[in-house]
Amino acid sequence: MDVKKFLENLKDPDEIKKLSKSEIDELTSAIREILIETVSHTGGHLASNLGVVELTIALLLAFNFPEDSIVWDVGHQVYTYKLLTGRYNDFHKLRTENGISGFSRPDESIYDSFYTGHSGASLSTAYGLSKSKELTGDNGFVVDVIGDGSFTNGMVYEALNNTGRTAKNLIVILNDNKMSISKNVGALSKYFTKIRTHRKYFRLKAHTERLLNKIPCIGHHLSRSLYHLKNTLKTVVYGTNFFEDLGYRYMGPVDGHNIEKLTEMLEMAKESTVPVLLHVKTVKGKGYDFAEKSPSTYHGISKFDINTGEPIASSGSFSDEFGRMICEMAEENDKICAITAAMKLSTGLKEFSKKFPDRFFDVGIAEEHAVAFACGLAKKEMIPVFTVYSTFLQRCYDQLIHDGALQRQKMIIAVDRAGFVGEDGETHQGVFDVAMLNSIPNTVVYSPSTYKELYLSFKHAVNSKEKSLFVIRYPRGDEKISGENIDTLKPYNIYGDTQANNAIVTYGRLFAYVNEAQKQLEKKGIRTKVINLNMIKPIDEKAVEAVLGCERIFFFEEGIKSAGVNECFAQKLFEKSYKGKYKTFAIDDEFVKQATVASQLKKYKLDTEGIVESVIKECNDIG
Amino acid sequence: MDVKKFLENLKDPDEIKKLSKSEIDELTSAIREILIETVSHTGGHLASNLGVVELTIALLLAFNFPEDSIVWDVGHQVYTYKLLTGRYNDFHKLRTENGISGFSRPDESIYDSFYTGHSGASLSTAYGLSKSKELTGDNGFVVDVIGDGSFTNGMVYEALNNTGRTAKNLIVILNDNKMSISKNVGALSKYFTKIRTHRKYFRLKAHTERLLNKIPCIGHHLSRSLYHLKNTLKTVVYGTNFFEDLGYRYMGPVDGHNIEKLTEMLEMAKESTVPVLLHVKTVKGKGYDFAEKSPSTYHGISKFDINTGEPIASSGSFSDEFGRMICEMAEENDKICAITAAMKLSTGLKEFSKKFPDRFFDVGIAEEHAVAFACGLAKKEMIPVFTVYSTFLQRCYDQLIHDGALQRQKMIIAVDRAGFVGEDGETHQGVFDVAMLNSIPNTVVYSPSTYKELYLSFKHAVNSKEKSLFVIRYPRGDEKISGENIDTLKPYNIYGDTQANNAIVTYGRLFAYVNEAQKQLEKKGIRTKVINLNMIKPIDEKAVEAVLGCERIFFFEEGIKSAGVNECFAQKLFEKSYKGKYKTFAIDDEFVKQATVASQLKKYKLDTEGIVESVIKECNDIG
Repeated sequence: MDVKKFLENLKDPDEIKKLSKSEIDELTSAIREILIETVSHTGGHLASNLGVVELTIALLLAFNFPEDSIVWDVGHQVYTYKLLTGRYNDFHKLRTENGISGFSRPDESIYDSFYTGHSGASLSTAYGLSKSKELTGDNGFVVDVIGDGSFTNGMVYEALNNTGRTAKNLIVILNDNKMSISKNVGALSKYFTKIRTHRKYFRLKAHTERLLNKIPCIGHHLSRSLYHLKNTLKTVVYGTNFFEDLGYRYMGPVDGHNIEKLTEMLEMAKESTVPVLLHVKTVKGKGYDFAEKSPSTYHGISKFDINTGEPIASSGSFSDEFGRMICEMAEENDKICAITAAMKLSTGLKEFSKKFPDRFFDVGIAEEHAVAFACGLAKKEMIPVFTVYSTFLQRCYDQLIHDGALQRQKMIIAVDRAGFVGEDGETHQGVFDVAMLNSIPNTVVYSPSTYKELYLSFKHAVNSKEKSLFVIRYPRGDEKISGENIDTLKPYNIYGDTQANNAIVTYGRLFAYVNEAQKQLEKKGIRTKVINLNMIKPIDEKAVEAVLGCERIFFFEEGIKSAGVNECFAQKLFEKSYKGKYKTFAIDDEFVKQATVASQLKKYKLDTEGIVESVIKECNDIG
Repeated sequence: MDVKKFLENLKDPDEIKKLSKSEIDELTSAIREILIETVSHTGGHLASNLGVVELTIALLLAFNFPEDSIVWDVGHQVYTYKLLTGRYNDFHKLRTENGISGFSRPDESIYDSFYTGHSGASLSTAYGLSKSKELTGDNGFVVDVIGDGSFTNGMVYEALNNTGRTAKNLIVILNDNKMSISKNVGALSKYFTKIRTHRKYFRLKAHTERLLNKIPCIGHHLSRSLYHLKNTLKTVVYGTNFFEDLGYRYMGPVDGHNIEKLTEMLEMAKESTVPVLLHVKTVKGKGYDFAEKSPSTYHGISKFDINTGEPIASSGSFSDEFGRMICEMAEENDKICAITAAMKLSTGLKEFSKKFPDRFFDVGIAEEHAVAFACGLAKKEMIPVFTVYSTFLQRCYDQLIHDGALQRQKMIIAVDRAGFVGEDGETHQGVFDVAMLNSIPNTVVYSPSTYKELYLSFKHAVNSKEKSLFVIRYPRGDEKISGENIDTLKPYNIYGDTQANNAIVTYGRLFAYVNEAQKQLEKKGIRTKVINLNMIKPIDEKAVEAVLGCERIFFFEEGIKSAGVNECFAQKLFEKSYKGKYKTFAIDDEFVKQATVASQLKKYKLDTEGIVESVIKECNDIG
């Protein structure tokens, strides 16, 4: 079989059903090669995708998509599914501008149900879809594929509570690879291990039940007796588990790399009259040695060398620096605790976790719990530092208000991946945190532009006696300008031509581009004063006063415009009776699509070129 | 015993430990009378407080607060605790301005650990406190009291995953009254019923275990055998439950109205070397017939007549009107579904739930799930309408972005209790939703001032072909001005003197006060044009243009200032080169304390008097 040709021409995934067993095997191997090859060039999620190749094929064999629907939790494990639903030819453009997304996307294919990217939500959306099918008389199944890591997220339980017993067309695939992004911790992971060991046990139960169902029911009384008999059998002989208690039929565990067994189980699941939870055991990174040995490293990875498994070297990052700084400070201050929601490696906490295991808490994919837990830690004078991606901080808005700022205790939130994140696309951009935090009282937000400012802000927060919520947000990647000449923490710094008639206000990563733009503008004869806000909430009154004398003020913001700092600044300008021009540049009421960070900055005119162009345009305008 | 005198002089709750059994009984009865009497005058949470009188006394008998710490989930069931921790003398000022809070508040008493008000967070904060005690060498216990209703909230599971096996000083009291705010639904409630029926069963187990523990361990091997024996016994004879699987010692169920038994169990719990979950059965509304029979009605109640149980009549409300409207529209349109997060009665959905049971979903206290579930419903062209309090909408910021706006499907969010809510205090004010929603792309927000505008906005959202997130927000209570003269939906309406040199811009409930202020100002010779925004996101450009000619613009907003509509409006004024004065009045970076809504409006100068005063002051200013 010419797998390449097969994939090139594959439009309808039903074609896979016509393949022989050996052809399926060929396909499986070929897909693994494509995954490794492509991700080595594009970067992306590798280990999780290698783990679900067989599972994806089995699902396509057992179901009829898109009549049946599939929801992928998180949605970063969909590469095989994309290859087999007509997206092979574009797959080399994975995670590139206008290319194939690394996540599930309905605008890319009718085979995708939802835009997914944040974990734990899939069972809720799948249930909604299942109910809407029921209400509209659609007989299709809804399959939800969800990893064991996502079971550390509370939304799953909210959904389980609602789906149990009621969602008859729903089949949940628990993809148990003993992993969330970091190694799975906590009691639930032990629980999964426990039920993983009951091999064949529930299949036996199914057989017994089928046998019992074959006994004709003579009247209500006998039927009730049989029901009790079954339940007694179940409890005494077989035991039960939480999913069954919630009204699911639990099936498995089954080897997630055996397509035949998987398909058989899926066909059995389709016969169930109650929702099914099929427990599938997979190996994260399967088929690529380096990834199998170190699945966390290959969870989300940049370009790498296939032969050595080594990432193609990148420079330092704010995350690394933050990791170094928190260790340094924790050496001196034994109150500092670090909390992560399953992001130990990517937020730079690996070293901290080794050096200070008693003060390190990986709480699972549980951002809400993380904030409330931090609140409890702070009560007895500990200094909790919760490190979290900007996009996932969105999950804790209520907790930041209710269990953070309102409690009048000191807590530190270190927000990584603030601003554009590049290739991960719309679900992951860190462009909402500033707007969200703007509204919260008793909160101080720093947005350092350099490692030095990060250090000073963080140190200040650690040492402050103020009982505030301290937020320090910093971008993905490295510093774009050195801050070594700064010695003390200031709420803002002034650069450029302090006597100029034009002012540019900005913060965070953009300062590097504004700084460069200022120089280029000067060469073109346009003098500008630059205000770089380090503290963006509250805005220092003097930072506003520093630009009042300027005829034109430009505000560049790497975040959503509405509710952003630019608007708060506008309000303050009115308060101080500013009568000049005020122009703002930010992301105007839209989601940011995948591309490189450079391309995203360019698109929104937030890179040097864009800044220079906008300023010149305005300065040349009449009036 | 003179109970009144005892309570008046009670400063240290340890005094209760000196009382005889009969004195405790007297105290219990007296407290019930105080609760019913006080709440009949002040309004508040009655049924839940009547349910925990004995439990609270037992906790005070078994523990030493504040050396031991207690966290009350939600925190509205703390009335007895307040009476017994030195707050009896002020208790008649319950829920009044500068009076006793209806929730747990550390600034009120050293016996309170956290400000609480939103459910499901307590186990996380309790765990944080438990860990911080461990880290600082404090031997005190941490007791978390949490209702079965809160177990429908996902945060509890996130916390269970982390607390299990590790938090040795933690004792969780599951206060099982078979109720959340509305009648508890879903699989978990069935599960609790199931384990409720295993009476004495786990006490028997405890005895067996104690016996087994007394057998001396001769070498590691025997110890391991015994361990296996115990586990086998547990699984085969006794079964197990989810809490035990997660590393808790499950105890109970125990009668929550038997102080002796409760105290005995609590003393046993203190001996445990692993965290304990003590399952306590209570009767919501216990001791007051009307409340026992209809606990939902007496969950949160306004002033009522003790003898008849009847609430002291209140006028209609936006909630009631909304309930009427959704029924009317659902008659005509069989796609409309209603979703509530355990707030069926208070959001006006009682009639809908009866008339359209197939399209009604009470998902429990699970706001995040509710939004994602709505997203799934919308996929197959259903029209989900999620009705939720503004303060609880804070819980779904991420879901509104990720599972709402980004999905490009039509969903409707009906936000009740938007703006000041009065006596519930800081945790419950609906002052953040606008700021939060401002940042979300693909979202339309209406803030009707009248029932008629509510109707028109809602009808528009239902019929719109736009694939947006439609949000309609309205205040607690009734309309303050009639809108019957409005026939068509407009993004804004102009009132007052259209040629005036002063403009007042506002939205929502405040329009009634602005309208009255405009008239009073006119009498004083100050002419104003009034813009009432119905659609606050996006702001209609013409609404901005309508005030450009005015020398002074005033913006009154019943919400948080930073990130509010007033700032967005400021930005738009700059875009249109407005050169006049712009003054804004809103809640400036603080939490809003309990008081009547009228008093809150007055405090922030958002009532007629405040508006008139602010406008006059500015108009009299030179410049």
